[in-house]
Amino acid sequence: MNNHHPTVKNILERARAAQRVALSAADCAELCRAYEIPIPSQALASSAAEAVEVAKEIGYPVALKISSPEIQHKTDVGGVALNLGDVSAVETSFKSLIARAKGARPEAHLDGVLVQKMVAGGGIELIVGASTDPSFGKLVAFGVGGVMVETLSDITFRLAPVTIPEARSMLDAIRSKEVLNGLRGGEAANRDALTALVRNVSLLVQDFPEIAEVDLNPVFASRTGATAADVRVLLDFDPPPVRFRPSQDEILRAMNRIMRPDSVAVIGASAEDGKIGNSVLKNLINGGYQGRIIPIHPSLDSVLGRRAFRSIKEVPERVDVAVFAIPARLVAPVLAECGQKSVAGAVLIPSGFAETGNVDMQREVVAVAREHNIRLMGPNIYGFYYTPKNLCATFCTPYDVKGKVALSSQSGGVGMAILGFSRSTKMGVSAIVGLGNKADIDEDDLLTFFEKDPDTEVVAMHVEDLKDGRSFAEVARRVSVKKPVIVLKAGRTAAGARAARSHTAALAGNDRIYDDVLRQSGVVRAQSLNDMLEFARCIPMLPTPAGENVLIITGAGGSGVLLADACVDNGLKLMEMPADLDQAFRKFIPPFGAAGNPVDITGGEPPATYQNAIRLGLTDPRVHSLVLGYWHTIITPPMVFAKLTAQVVEEQRRQGIDKPVVASLVGDVEVEEACAYLFERQIPAYAYTTEKPVVVLGAKYKWARGAGTFG
Amino acid sequence: MNNHHPTVKNILERARAAQRVALSAADCAELCRAYEIPIPSQALASSAAEAVEVAKEIGYPVALKISSPEIQHKTDVGGVALNLGDVSAVETSFKSLIARAKGARPEAHLDGVLVQKMVAGGGIELIVGASTDPSFGKLVAFGVGGVMVETLSDITFRLAPVTIPEARSMLDAIRSKEVLNGLRGGEAANRDALTALVRNVSLLVQDFPEIAEVDLNPVFASRTGATAADVRVLLDFDPPPVRFRPSQDEILRAMNRIMRPDSVAVIGASAEDGKIGNSVLKNLINGGYQGRIIPIHPSLDSVLGRRAFRSIKEVPERVDVAVFAIPARLVAPVLAECGQKSVAGAVLIPSGFAETGNVDMQREVVAVAREHNIRLMGPNIYGFYYTPKNLCATFCTPYDVKGKVALSSQSGGVGMAILGFSRSTKMGVSAIVGLGNKADIDEDDLLTFFEKDPDTEVVAMHVEDLKDGRSFAEVARRVSVKKPVIVLKAGRTAAGARAARSHTAALAGNDRIYDDVLRQSGVVRAQSLNDMLEFARCIPMLPTPAGENVLIITGAGGSGVLLADACVDNGLKLMEMPADLDQAFRKFIPPFGAAGNPVDITGGEPPATYQNAIRLGLTDPRVHSLVLGYWHTIITPPMVFAKLTAQVVEEQRRQGIDKPVVASLVGDVEVEEACAYLFERQIPAYAYTTEKPVVVLGAKYKWARGAGTFG
Repeated sequence: MNNHHPTVKNILERARAAQRVALSAADCAELCRAYEIPIPSQALASSAAEAVEVAKEIGYPVALKISSPEIQHKTDVGGVALNLGDVSAVETSFKSLIARAKGARPEAHLDGVLVQKMVAGGGIELIVGASTDPSFGKLVAFGVGGVMVETLSDITFRLAPVTIPEARSMLDAIRSKEVLNGLRGGEAANRDALTALVRNVSLLVQDFPEIAEVDLNPVFASRTGATAADVRVLLDFDPPPVRFRPSQDEILRAMNRIMRPDSVAVIGASAEDGKIGNSVLKNLINGGYQGRIIPIHPSLDSVLGRRAFRSIKEVPERVDVAVFAIPARLVAPVLAECGQKSVAGAVLIPSGFAETGNVDMQREVVAVAREHNIRLMGPNIYGFYYTPKNLCATFCTPYDVKGKVALSSQSGGVGMAILGFSRSTKMGVSAIVGLGNKADIDEDDLLTFFEKDPDTEVVAMHVEDLKDGRSFAEVARRVSVKKPVIVLKAGRTAAGARAARSHTAALAGNDRIYDDVLRQSGVVRAQSLNDMLEFARCIPMLPTPAGENVLIITGAGGSGVLLADACVDNGLKLMEMPADLDQAFRKFIPPFGAAGNPVDITGGEPPATYQNAIRLGLTDPRVHSLVLGYWHTIITPPMVFAKLTAQVVEEQRRQGIDKPVVASLVGDVEVEEACAYLFERQIPAYAYTTEKPVVVLGAKYKWARGAGTFG
Repeated sequence: MNNHHPTVKNILERARAAQRVALSAADCAELCRAYEIPIPSQALASSAAEAVEVAKEIGYPVALKISSPEIQHKTDVGGVALNLGDVSAVETSFKSLIARAKGARPEAHLDGVLVQKMVAGGGIELIVGASTDPSFGKLVAFGVGGVMVETLSDITFRLAPVTIPEARSMLDAIRSKEVLNGLRGGEAANRDALTALVRNVSLLVQDFPEIAEVDLNPVFASRTGATAADVRVLLDFDPPPVRFRPSQDEILRAMNRIMRPDSVAVIGASAEDGKIGNSVLKNLINGGYQGRIIPIHPSLDSVLGRRAFRSIKEVPERVDVAVFAIPARLVAPVLAECGQKSVAGAVLIPSGFAETGNVDMQREVVAVAREHNIRLMGPNIYGFYYTPKNLCATFCTPYDVKGKVALSSQSGGVGMAILGFSRSTKMGVSAIVGLGNKADIDEDDLLTFFEKDPDTEVVAMHVEDLKDGRSFAEVARRVSVKKPVIVLKAGRTAAGARAARSHTAALAGNDRIYDDVLRQSGVVRAQSLNDMLEFARCIPMLPTPAGENVLIITGAGGSGVLLADACVDNGLKLMEMPADLDQAFRKFIPPFGAAGNPVDITGGEPPATYQNAIRLGLTDPRVHSLVLGYWHTIITPPMVFAKLTAQVVEEQRRQGIDKPVVASLVGDVEVEEACAYLFERQIPAYAYTTEKPVVVLGAKYKWARGAGTFG
């Protein structure tokens, strides 16, 4: 589109000079032509006679629309007349439009009246638009348009610019996607034309950041094309400040020193029980950290048996990380000393910064850190754990179950939930990181580190806000292809009441953007705290499925129905049972059992039936994942089921067949022990719920689809 | 409407005589007039000249629509022309409509062409309709209409007939309900006219069961009224068979003898371990049942120390219930003997009936039962528990924790989950009942019993299908006002692909009807097995809230945000904090804590702060429910929090203040013990989840709203 830049540039220059916040209809038309956005034949008329002239030229029927950069919602002032079929209709309408606009908005400057050819046959009314988000920047939108646009609120967003495949994916991301396939007796929409339209709008706002919002509504989609019958372009010549962001290499270098330090100083180390500086030092020592631990204390020569220094400047060797356990007001000067010592990162445990309204103090600390090239974790955090180094740089209790999951939380409370849940379920973790106020280090810094961290395979993050959603999305998109990224986005229903001038912006509720952009970035979104924790626990246990075919094998028909419900709820595809496989299952199950999917082996069966059915499900290459429904019976008690299941899965793993297997166990309390047994053998299994195992499998699938591991 | 019956009756008689499955446009118009369903001025024309004549009379613009009882989807055959403004347009269109209809459907009989006045100004396009469900009978529907009706699928159903308030509630039950309040620059719909329209359609299908489906689509709603621009009426002269249903008194009498029997016979009692007849007898004895236990055995004089009889006919005293533990094929003859003995109910544990395809055998057993006036529980069940009588008439393990919750399940597996969950959480129950194949006794029989049962306060039911949804809805509506009724409807996503001729019927997906009708009946629907179990456990613990104001008090800001999300997700209203109450809270919390809602007391606070804040929340009459978010700290450890919370709640309960309080605890594993402590004191409390306590509170609110306990 570069060749069209000058046209748009000129339009915007004129608008800036005139201090306009919106483009006139005529400017919109010119802009659309420059960006290959199809619009109906049209021209501006300043008198009724001129309108008749234009109508004659472009052909009846026509629409008249008041044109004024100050009147954004034309229908609100009665500024639109549709379907005018002859001269007298045009004349009458011209006059009444002008009169109504002057009556409603006497102060508005009127450019005249736009005479526009009616789009033949109407067609499906859609909206294509763009808006600007403080965190994510330029977004492009696609959805159902027309007068019900805000009521239906059926719209999807992507970071602009979009590729053609991304634009195409938007057509399938709306609830009403079926409208595009044609209505009863109607025709299907031209998907290529719509895709191109979406892409062109995304390029437009990418090329011209001063275009804050775009509304093409309605866009009439038909078999042959897509035409924007109404165009609104809103401007903002105040660009947002550019955020500080080191290069990925710089981030990685600093984060490596912080997460895998050779030496850790504790600022405010204390020998006194109950003090934070005491807990941190104890945790470092008792956690088994093998690097150098350096207490900094104003008067003592040693703390808890470790040699102490008066100031970090006195420490003879290099210091990678300084953990701060001193009051907020003392942080800045000590941080400067850390800078002189070339410390890579400061872990700011203290609260009393921005979260208590003390914004200036936080800003000061950030300024000191920038000056000395120190990265800050926090403030207002519990610290962090990095188990490969036995590192517990926190005042909370140590944690030592090593594993492949890295977790972070913006809130300390959620961090504590991570700790308790991990301990309770013996979840292996690589890291638990508190981000708190995120004055500096944020999720995309962590992701950049975890991406290369050989000890991390999955990342789960509790997020309240992303300071720089666009950077996060960029990094997440890259990382999530290799390692699943799970996000619990809190505050999703608190969508602020932002004053929006366009439909697109009005519909860009904060949570909807997060939802769309996180998906676009390959992130698996958890809908609740417990889901995030269970996803973190189970996703690394489950091998990546080779395809979409999920098979349910159940001992209880009732569980089978509920498991099938859960599969549909979680976007899983119940495999259609091939006839030969159906026959093969029937060999094991009683004649009144149901093959098909679910395979209902019925409740009265011995262990061998479970065993045979599970083995068959694992070995048949058309089955990609198994959901097991166990029903407590005397003939196959819970622990017998657990052991046989683990054994069959293990036997097949040894033969190179590793498929996701999850289980729901219903029965008396013995099923709890059986679930624990299965979990220890890397088979997610839950008691008294048919939902949870399927939600967890669904999360793995969401990741696999986003990462493009199949098809 | 009674005075109009003859008109419609005549129309239907004619249609029946002509073996028509649909009414012609002219008949539809007449029927609408009889039921005060507004339609545009219109008349049938059989020639172009006649059409012009009609158009002149009713006024331009007009629409022409092909009229044939055999052509249901007129647009599919190009049988509709809209917005015709003059004589020549009418003439041309008449001819092309006839030509197209004859081309597309040469076999169809054409009544002519309907000339209809265009609805002025258009307006909002809605659908009002009716359909007939095999389980629920006549349903009336309301939703968004027009060409996108099936794509949007935004429609709600109620059992017909509806009252005016019920019809009005439908206007608020659709996703797009905002369209009725007026579109941008548009006008609001006349709610009274729409309400009347919905009601009249519901009366029509109530009055004439042979009307199977009605589509009014589109209905144009405007400020002044609602007009059905297109009417389709489909007929079915084959009425479904009437279901056997005893009177409520008869049900109650029988169910009382079954659930609270003075004597129980065990058919197939056995001394041999591992036999079902042995387990049942043991459970009756060991469970502590104080009534008479009578083993029936072909040869023994006593089984497990109880005097046995060869046949039930030989038992000298009255027998209330016979539990069958014999093979399916032996059931019928023994059942006849039970009949001679005037047994009230037979509990049919054996499987091998309809669930294995043995439909005839089940039918035979039912016939025997009807003949002898015996009610059947099952077949294919685990039996039932009724704890007030220490009655364990089941082959599963006994259960003895008494409480106020009655549960039933259609599937044995789910029954086992109920048992295990109950035991694990020490949930007090009054009854657990297996319904299995539901050859006779079903959920509405149970509800009728539990309604009057002084030992039951809440009923939770796992349902796969309702044999008679209408009866269930009737009983549930009555019972749920007094006692919460929770339903887990399984198979909700399996909505069968029913061939539907009308839009309304096509949209009446099985699950949507369940959802709407269960809500109409005041039932709280659980979305998962675990939700059903948690609702059953917690709803009786929670007092009924006095109003909608929910207040969150949290020690962790992060939890507060997640709890607020959960409140919005679960339809709970976060109280707007009054200024004086805000001030009152601020007295307890640090200056940087946040009052408002959530009240964030911050993490570093001592027990007194939690205590004061909770007490204030309980005592202020404007607060109706509390959601607590606890954050594990050294200064207020988990058990300290649990104890102080229980103490404040107890102290207020003693003073007559009893509000729902639920809690989310995040922290290290000690929070699990704290949750158990709180649960024991009737305060639902969950670890590592911010969702579950709120879901549970939301369920209590759903019930309270349905029962009309406030407002």
